[in-house]
Amino acid sequence: MIVALSGGVGGAKLVRGLSLTEQPTTTIVNTADDFTHWGLHISPDLDSVMYALSDLSDPVRGWGVREESWNALKMVEHYQGEHWFQLGDRDLATHLIRTQCLNEGQTLTQATKRLCNALEIQVNVLPMSDDLIQTQVETPQGWLDFQIYFVKECCQPEVKSVRFQNIEQSKPTQDVLNAIESASLIILCPSNPVVSLDPILRVPGMEMALQAASAPVVAVSPLIGGRAVKGPTVEMLKGLGFESSPVTVASRYQSFLNGFVLDEQDQQLKTEIENLNLEVMTTNTLMSSDEDKKQLAESILKAWL
Amino acid sequence: MIVALSGGVGGAKLVRGLSLTEQPTTTIVNTADDFTHWGLHISPDLDSVMYALSDLSDPVRGWGVREESWNALKMVEHYQGEHWFQLGDRDLATHLIRTQCLNEGQTLTQATKRLCNALEIQVNVLPMSDDLIQTQVETPQGWLDFQIYFVKECCQPEVKSVRFQNIEQSKPTQDVLNAIESASLIILCPSNPVVSLDPILRVPGMEMALQAASAPVVAVSPLIGGRAVKGPTVEMLKGLGFESSPVTVASRYQSFLNGFVLDEQDQQLKTEIENLNLEVMTTNTLMSSDEDKKQLAESILKAWL
Repeated sequence: MIVALSGGVGGAKLVRGLSLTEQPTTTIVNTADDFTHWGLHISPDLDSVMYALSDLSDPVRGWGVREESWNALKMVEHYQGEHWFQLGDRDLATHLIRTQCLNEGQTLTQATKRLCNALEIQVNVLPMSDDLIQTQVETPQGWLDFQIYFVKECCQPEVKSVRFQNIEQSKPTQDVLNAIESASLIILCPSNPVVSLDPILRVPGMEMALQAASAPVVAVSPLIGGRAVKGPTVEMLKGLGFESSPVTVASRYQSFLNGFVLDEQDQQLKTEIENLNLEVMTTNTLMSSDEDKKQLAESILKAWL
Repeated sequence: MIVALSGGVGGAKLVRGLSLTEQPTTTIVNTADDFTHWGLHISPDLDSVMYALSDLSDPVRGWGVREESWNALKMVEHYQGEHWFQLGDRDLATHLIRTQCLNEGQTLTQATKRLCNALEIQVNVLPMSDDLIQTQVETPQGWLDFQIYFVKECCQPEVKSVRFQNIEQSKPTQDVLNAIESASLIILCPSNPVVSLDPILRVPGMEMALQAASAPVVAVSPLIGGRAVKGPTVEMLKGLGFESSPVTVASRYQSFLNGFVLDEQDQQLKTEIENLNLEVMTTNTLMSSDEDKKQLAESILKAWL
């Protein structure tokens, strides 16, 4: 069993690549971006992964569901309700069903399984925790909930620090711990290290579980040629006082990492990362087509499985 | 101030007619059809009235919002969720905002006001009660919640009796009692007498308030030539052992009624109803166009205001 730790869109692409190899896969997904909007529980990263795996993702927008319409949103706007978060009509169904499951007393893990089963998703999609954890970003205007910073403020405010509310009281689910323990390969997807992978790693017990895992642990660089494919990774790393470089990312994971996948554009950093005592593979990590996604997944499996 | 007691579509038409006369109007609306679906609080009769007053009603379907789409519903079906109740995407916005208001601790009266204000509705739309009341219909297959009988079972099961769960513990709102007390004319709209008007009348204190009102109380027949314009009025009256006739309806309201509006097709019943000590007007009560609605409203106002 391959285990992939994933945030949103970038992670979802690699998880889709893994699913195309038909290797049995579990993905552990960040839920610290989750929030409540219109009274619904929205899990943006779980949704990105589910939509990627069920081929429902919108390929142009890069988020949400393809062939989407926005009539509920327009009507909410007509009602002078909150309309800064773009919830499409098809997407709404996901949040309605998830919220209903949670209100009936199901865990987020159970609700996710129910949604994935209906979409006939083969990959085992696991929220990192069933506890509510909330990413907040410190900016010159104060602490902002993640979605306010990310969507409403369009990542414009400078990031001074990041915190994950309630994470000290949270725990990984038993499913997550079992997956890590029995994995034959663990992959950290090319997701934002600050707000997508860090919350997963900071759930108490997660880093210890990764250190104790018998499987090799491999991370894929979220940066290509000094830039993120999507999202504010560069700005966040800089805001927190780090160099925005794959070396920073590899160092962060050093305590449990065995291998690192570097984009071929960043070849010149290979030795520096190898000096962190990591086995480094360079390849094309930009996943535009399904073929790219599968190829990256296959290269990783070939090298470390 | 005109006060109109209304159920769904038929009542909503006359309330719209009253609004077109520009006479200040309050409508007291049945909420015993309310139910929870997809975790949302749905108030079908409040919605029918709101949509009619804001010119959002779909004129062809006869219910719901015009220019509607059904993409959330199709996606819920894809998820193998409950899809027997047709919730359109634009309609969903109403239920999302109402549910959020209620979850924040607002009363149904407050939530309704918030929705009506945004739609710039001039008529004062009041739920009959802020308490949850639930119509159930006894059929050969047992007791069914109203929407199961009405929508899922398409009114097919025979109706043996009807009950309103929780109605004994409910009360009318102060807004409702004030409206009745200060009304200059009270109109019972041509709504289903069994499941639309009866729940309003059976909220403890309502009939007494109508009897005590200084304004004349007038009912519009929900039957034309022995048939209902829409809905299972005839079947229900018969199922409960009543003759399906305007006389039955007029008799039901006799304790507080002063006048009755009979369709001109039912002219032959005029004397029988007058014998109930009621002033009877005959006119065209079929409201197809806005002009019809306004005309019926004007005739009533002319006769009794």
